[in-house]
Amino acid sequence: MEANILISNCTIISMTAKGIIENGVIAIKNDEITYVGKQTTAPKITAEKLLDAQGKVAIPGLINCHTHLAMTLFRGIAEDQPLRTWLTDTIWPLEAKLQPKDVYSGALLGCLEMIKTGTTTLADMYYHEDQVAQAVEKAGLRAVLTQGTIEIGDPRIGEKTLKNSISFATKYHGYADGRVTTRLGPHAVYTCSQELLAKVRETASKLNLGIQIHLAESKEMMKQIRKEHNLGEVELLKKIGFLGSDVLAAHCIHLIKKEMKLLAMHNVKVAHNPVANMKLAQGTAKIKDLRDLGIVVGLGTDGPASNNTLDMFETMKVAALLQKLHYQDPTVLPAYTVLKMATIEAAKALGIENSIGSIEIGKKADILLIDFKTPHLTPLHNVYANIVYSAHGSDVHTVIANGKILMENREVETLNENEVIHKAQTTAFRLAAN
Amino acid sequence: MEANILISNCTIISMTAKGIIENGVIAIKNDEITYVGKQTTAPKITAEKLLDAQGKVAIPGLINCHTHLAMTLFRGIAEDQPLRTWLTDTIWPLEAKLQPKDVYSGALLGCLEMIKTGTTTLADMYYHEDQVAQAVEKAGLRAVLTQGTIEIGDPRIGEKTLKNSISFATKYHGYADGRVTTRLGPHAVYTCSQELLAKVRETASKLNLGIQIHLAESKEMMKQIRKEHNLGEVELLKKIGFLGSDVLAAHCIHLIKKEMKLLAMHNVKVAHNPVANMKLAQGTAKIKDLRDLGIVVGLGTDGPASNNTLDMFETMKVAALLQKLHYQDPTVLPAYTVLKMATIEAAKALGIENSIGSIEIGKKADILLIDFKTPHLTPLHNVYANIVYSAHGSDVHTVIANGKILMENREVETLNENEVIHKAQTTAFRLAAN
Repeated sequence: MEANILISNCTIISMTAKGIIENGVIAIKNDEITYVGKQTTAPKITAEKLLDAQGKVAIPGLINCHTHLAMTLFRGIAEDQPLRTWLTDTIWPLEAKLQPKDVYSGALLGCLEMIKTGTTTLADMYYHEDQVAQAVEKAGLRAVLTQGTIEIGDPRIGEKTLKNSISFATKYHGYADGRVTTRLGPHAVYTCSQELLAKVRETASKLNLGIQIHLAESKEMMKQIRKEHNLGEVELLKKIGFLGSDVLAAHCIHLIKKEMKLLAMHNVKVAHNPVANMKLAQGTAKIKDLRDLGIVVGLGTDGPASNNTLDMFETMKVAALLQKLHYQDPTVLPAYTVLKMATIEAAKALGIENSIGSIEIGKKADILLIDFKTPHLTPLHNVYANIVYSAHGSDVHTVIANGKILMENREVETLNENEVIHKAQTTAFRLAAN
Repeated sequence: MEANILISNCTIISMTAKGIIENGVIAIKNDEITYVGKQTTAPKITAEKLLDAQGKVAIPGLINCHTHLAMTLFRGIAEDQPLRTWLTDTIWPLEAKLQPKDVYSGALLGCLEMIKTGTTTLADMYYHEDQVAQAVEKAGLRAVLTQGTIEIGDPRIGEKTLKNSISFATKYHGYADGRVTTRLGPHAVYTCSQELLAKVRETASKLNLGIQIHLAESKEMMKQIRKEHNLGEVELLKKIGFLGSDVLAAHCIHLIKKEMKLLAMHNVKVAHNPVANMKLAQGTAKIKDLRDLGIVVGLGTDGPASNNTLDMFETMKVAALLQKLHYQDPTVLPAYTVLKMATIEAAKALGIENSIGSIEIGKKADILLIDFKTPHLTPLHNVYANIVYSAHGSDVHTVIANGKILMENREVETLNENEVIHKAQTTAFRLAAN
């Protein structure tokens, strides 16, 4: 059997019914996984690139279901402030000044951080999204990208931003050898009219594109919507026929049982962002309740201005901690469930579970090797617990995406680390200074 | 001016009224800081060891106010379980089997992890604490150590464990060139009788030793105490004259206002362990309320079996997130306050703020250099926010404790990393297998 890359001697966390494979081998041909199994029963495999993974653990590349990559530029710029002040005094004025090239350098910094912390797929929503697509292409990552649509009371803005969203989505769907797919993305119920939301829904169905939206993030905005329409955000979306299995709703914090059931009934997917929700003091999404209703929940970091990192290992741990605290029950969201929410469940949330989210034959080769020979991952009583509760992005030794090595021994192959950091720093300072 | 170590070209986070010193130099002679200031106005300093800290940020060594180091051996061994099952089915039976040499190898692994994540001082409470003292001595760290006293209904056990605690405390106070100091440590109000607690208090005062105790951690135990004594845990301690400025109380989750005021009145110090409190679903300590009453609060990780790391950077971030969430206010516990709780306030909690907790002339030289040339610490809009919300233990480049370099460029100088990991792994497996 011939392969391009052969990984040997590793513990494989398959995230399939096969569970954990000790002393395993993984073969990769082009962009695909062509063999997964025990060393002892594997066929003879020859490969150009051999990776001896002794002492390492292979897991599927992590999937970040909600972020705004270019906001790396604003990391730390406005801290410990109320949400409204943060947005109106700092973030929005800065975003108004963003040029395409600025978004490119911010997104590239985000891609670099993701490679170094083991994320191989991201869902992003921002302005100048073509620049994000180009950064993702260069970095070698996989992404579901959305040029945001927003109205804020002015239908002309709504029309214009929807047009741009559609233009981006049709142009970039399948970009970068298929690593980039696209969606439409109305910002939120409180920033888009019902008419605009209905138009997005109709267009998405016609073009066979999914949708990303922020939902039930702010209690204040939820109240405003209910006052204006005498309906909750979810009921409003239901009324206009917006809900569907291709909708990924970020946050979903302030939902009552009736609204959760509506999401479940329409098979809407949820992106949970525990760190940002805590940092902005927005509240706790009831992830156990959502999952008990059969809703697919993936994890996300949200933008680096409200997190402030893109490290999915940290997000996994905080997700588990937060649910245990909320339900006053340490058995809620055990380690394996959390790891699913950053791999196979996250892939389902993005509708690409046939391509990624597990280590099995026929899937795209998106794989991490984690170095377990470190003090904080010793002893190895429970590999899932060590991954979720003890590991950190900096433990990722090797990153493979779409069959290509993006990082080996913590050296990034696709990007010049110093250049990317320097450019982003300069861009961020220029924006902050003006 | 002559020094042993000269750190130059760095941004100094002094944690004093001097704030941030850009382009700074720090001189170290023997175990002390002998100069701190701007490069431009510094005297001529010659030193045997020069550390060029270009691109790095110097902060005081972090202080972990509550842990059980040797429990690294049980990291991940019993996960996602109710507190009582976790203790009775796994932790207590394993602890009963612990031999002194096991505690030594677990504690040494903990020391290694702390050096690699930037902690230079720890407060520990466990069995066979002489072994922990020896591990700390070898690693080069600073520690406040306590051999635990526990009774569980049998006064003979109480007598015996108190005797051992006193014997340890008197023997090891000032050990390792003064890096180790000792305290007495009754486990908790619900595991020690009033008579025993009173005896501990009396002995501590006589010997001029401080006290560590677990307080108001479990709601269930709080209720039991109130039922038995018709008094809360804090009121009970007040009644027997236990409270004082030399008492460090870990957790303090379930306190009503009256109890908080009692702690404030007696100048009791608090060790807050946000990660373990969330993971075991015990609840949220009201840190803002405690601090508003003037109570000194330091941060801790708790034992690695309920965290599961010893990384104080992670603990700082989770502490901030948890308080913001609890008070529904993103302005609560801003980054600078959190950093104080892991440095100068933590030193106050341990009663050693004259020696450590800040970078200033005359203090012991406990200093970290953090590498800021990384994607997740770019851009540098706000150094405090980057340290608390974006940095991680793995960003620590150099660790100095008591004037000695413990780690440089992530190479630990005092311990053989592979040996320590291998020994702890073997020990942990043997304990789990029997």
